[in-house]
Amino acid sequence: MRDHRHNIDRVFHALGDPNRRAIVEKLSRGPVSVSNLAKPLAITLAAVVQHLQILEESGLVHTEKTGRVRTCRIEPKGFSVAEQWIGDLRTTWERRLDRLADLLAESEEE
Amino acid sequence: MRDHRHNIDRVFHALGDPNRRAIVEKLSRGPVSVSNLAKPLAITLAAVVQHLQILEESGLVHTEKTGRVRTCRIEPKGFSVAEQWIGDLRTTWERRLDRLADLLAESEEE
Repeated sequence: MRDHRHNIDRVFHALGDPNRRAIVEKLSRGPVSVSNLAKPLAITLAAVVQHLQILEESGLVHTEKTGRVRTCRIEPKGFSVAEQWIGDLRTTWERRLDRLADLLAESEEE
Repeated sequence: MRDHRHNIDRVFHALGDPNRRAIVEKLSRGPVSVSNLAKPLAITLAAVVQHLQILEESGLVHTEKTGRVRTCRIEPKGFSVAEQWIGDLRTTWERRLDRLADLLAESEEE
């Protein structure tokens, strides 16, 4: 449970940064090497490497080194953590609204 | 389009903070006054007010003052922005994987 909470924290922290979201958007279109990832972003290679580390630790991106090239790809599982958190919230508030609607209907019948 | 991008930025920035996510989780269970919201969180009332301002600007929470009490409630629309952003990513990478599968099948047929 605490691990799950920790996962949620890491995923939303990672997605909270616009450069990291730009990296993730680019990777959704296909795997990219670290150096090619840095080019279109107006940030240094060192900054990209730091962002990638956060994205990798949060389970949103996977990187793999083959020879001298490190390739990055999207990790779909990480995004499910964010979707599930929002989905759970939605379930909670919709159930509450349903109960309110039931109460209203009952009080009208009386 | 730029407005939509701006919305995405605000929503993910807002959700990137654990105290703001705790506020949103509490509000999913029903509307709460600002002072009752501050109590269970180990932060000052001033900090809660600041978090609420960010949540309200990002469209995730709505606050309304009646007399001397300001009540906060969840704003479902804001969460759709985050869900749609992740959904769009998912569509992009799934389409790419489908194309790859088609190419593989074609090359096997040849």
